[in-house]
Amino acid sequence: MRCGAGIDARMVDELAINIDPIQAGGRLTADAMKAVVAYGDGYSVCDNCRKPNRLDYISKPPIAEFHKDLAAWLNMDTARVVPGARRGFQAVAHTYVHKGDPVLLTSLSHYTEFLAIEEADGIACEIPADEQNIVTADAAAVKIEEVKKQHGRLPVLAFIDHVDYQYGNIHDVQAIAKVAHQYDIPLLYNGAYTVGILPVDGKNLCADFVVGSGHKSMAAPAPSGVLAATVERAKEVFRTTAITGDVTGRKFGIKEPELMGCTLMGVTLVGMMASFPHIKERVKHFGRELENAGTVLDALRSIQGTSVLSEYPRKHTLTRIDTTASLDAVAQTHKKRGFFFSGALGEKGVTGIIPGATRVWKYNTYGITRSQARYVAQVFVDIALENGLKVA
Amino acid sequence: MRCGAGIDARMVDELAINIDPIQAGGRLTADAMKAVVAYGDGYSVCDNCRKPNRLDYISKPPIAEFHKDLAAWLNMDTARVVPGARRGFQAVAHTYVHKGDPVLLTSLSHYTEFLAIEEADGIACEIPADEQNIVTADAAAVKIEEVKKQHGRLPVLAFIDHVDYQYGNIHDVQAIAKVAHQYDIPLLYNGAYTVGILPVDGKNLCADFVVGSGHKSMAAPAPSGVLAATVERAKEVFRTTAITGDVTGRKFGIKEPELMGCTLMGVTLVGMMASFPHIKERVKHFGRELENAGTVLDALRSIQGTSVLSEYPRKHTLTRIDTTASLDAVAQTHKKRGFFFSGALGEKGVTGIIPGATRVWKYNTYGITRSQARYVAQVFVDIALENGLKVA
Repeated sequence: MRCGAGIDARMVDELAINIDPIQAGGRLTADAMKAVVAYGDGYSVCDNCRKPNRLDYISKPPIAEFHKDLAAWLNMDTARVVPGARRGFQAVAHTYVHKGDPVLLTSLSHYTEFLAIEEADGIACEIPADEQNIVTADAAAVKIEEVKKQHGRLPVLAFIDHVDYQYGNIHDVQAIAKVAHQYDIPLLYNGAYTVGILPVDGKNLCADFVVGSGHKSMAAPAPSGVLAATVERAKEVFRTTAITGDVTGRKFGIKEPELMGCTLMGVTLVGMMASFPHIKERVKHFGRELENAGTVLDALRSIQGTSVLSEYPRKHTLTRIDTTASLDAVAQTHKKRGFFFSGALGEKGVTGIIPGATRVWKYNTYGITRSQARYVAQVFVDIALENGLKVA
Repeated sequence: MRCGAGIDARMVDELAINIDPIQAGGRLTADAMKAVVAYGDGYSVCDNCRKPNRLDYISKPPIAEFHKDLAAWLNMDTARVVPGARRGFQAVAHTYVHKGDPVLLTSLSHYTEFLAIEEADGIACEIPADEQNIVTADAAAVKIEEVKKQHGRLPVLAFIDHVDYQYGNIHDVQAIAKVAHQYDIPLLYNGAYTVGILPVDGKNLCADFVVGSGHKSMAAPAPSGVLAATVERAKEVFRTTAITGDVTGRKFGIKEPELMGCTLMGVTLVGMMASFPHIKERVKHFGRELENAGTVLDALRSIQGTSVLSEYPRKHTLTRIDTTASLDAVAQTHKKRGFFFSGALGEKGVTGIIPGATRVWKYNTYGITRSQARYVAQVFVDIALENGLKVA
């Protein structure tokens, strides 16, 4: 089936259990699918835009209310929607970082945080994770002092991922924020793997900013995300335009330059809004997700030679695993080489693992049902047994 | 009907002829609607992302091919998709504009161009439009000299809207570009009302950059757009990342910092791709659109006291009209005041005019059929006659 010239309709989640590490939290809800159809046209949300002509003031559809609810849900003072978490990083970096300013992030930070720093002409200073791949407040304190010595000035901003994309480990943002605040360094909480997945309380985390990703973890179309701030920081990042036309004397109302005016319209915003009640509910049941993740991981760990690279026991469903001494040993002599594994998974209706990967790989069981988790666990064991591996 | 808690399904284009000035060119095609359903999940386009792991290298769905086709269609060397035209302005402004640098735009420029300049700490310098609301190359030359005198340096960049959002007038970008190039000023062609509407030949226009809007004029979901460049300028704006992790030594491949890495995914990109063949075809038939616009405008002009504020005869379907001496005269004594007009239009199945507007207002007949154009023309005349206005 095609949905346009040369574009095959995608049927991945319809045909298989998908444990792709980045797709799990972004699958649209049924309501988001309906919203996407009803609000397909971008300017559809502008039907009832009236003065002061800004997206977050529109009351029909209830965009203004959504903005308030979003901020309250994250326990922050103000929220804006942005075209992806990265555009939230960019807005904050551009506000605080000037040429040559050091900026804190971590040795496990996502590349988009580096790009936000690069784009603002700052210097990226990584807080090293420890041997267990955890970033600690102590390491943050040491790094701040090192930066001060090396660059002669303090970092102007810190990006801390609550759950990193490499291991899915949880880092103590609250403790790191307390250290950062002792040096008056504002902290951006990167919740790309948490906002929409588990409960996030920005004030309790001592975050100055909370960033979330719509298409990664809020069951919203791409590109979408949220940037929330405390009332003090909102004044800085969400300041309104001050530029004027030198000939016309034009001013541009209350548009916000760091957001480039209105941000998300149509499918992205209304999709996010339609999923929101479901998101609010699902974060309350993260325990079930961990239980499913545990079932799958127990099966993988039972395959002799397999080890977990993520922290263990798991606190998040995104997991990094090392099968060099198990699946990769099979791949060495298998006629399909490393593709035997993704091939076997595909035949059994499981998808989302990079084809050919048999050494170090990631998966995410978020959103699958209890019986799907049991099935996936059995599939891993079956593939191991079928290929002569020992299972405990 | 609802498409989520508290969100009514939108049925505007389904129930009426919509002549909204900004919605006309962004209505999704049927193929885009299908694509939006099939590729609802953001990371859906990443199923087959392989090294070097960048959006514009993905071949299934044919994203790489689309990027090449898009550049060729605009007669530019390289194209990238961006989350709205404004994010194209931002990327270019950030590359060339530093603190205090003067930047050219026009007295009819869109606010997002001002925000891009403000966000890059530049100074906005408007080329004044003439009495007919046309920006000329002569005015550009004069302005450049004025800027040089006033600021002691030349503008570093020029944003020129081919068709402005206020009057829908066409400005001679090619001639202005030639003047700008005499001073080595790169020119960004803002095609928010042209790319996807009428044929655009970037090289022939002497543009260094061509920016288009997906949701305004390319029948694509929001936020989406295109930023195309010449090969020389592409090296500057689409330069790849150079930042490294100070602890890990990590580098980030060929990601482009001005784009913040990958840009559009899922609905926005695949919607744009699905509409693309239809867009390529429709720009060849802009003459029909002008004919329809003429039919509607003739009817409006026949209402005594009505004048056209846009250039006349019309070269674009977006039109600004002054009905102060006709419809607004009726509004003075009508029990519904100015709302009589939008109310009457609504009853007759025409929508898209700001409710209450009876003095100066805009409309856009783009995309309506010949018989719809005749109907809308008759509706305007009927409303005038029903309210005692004279019609020639």
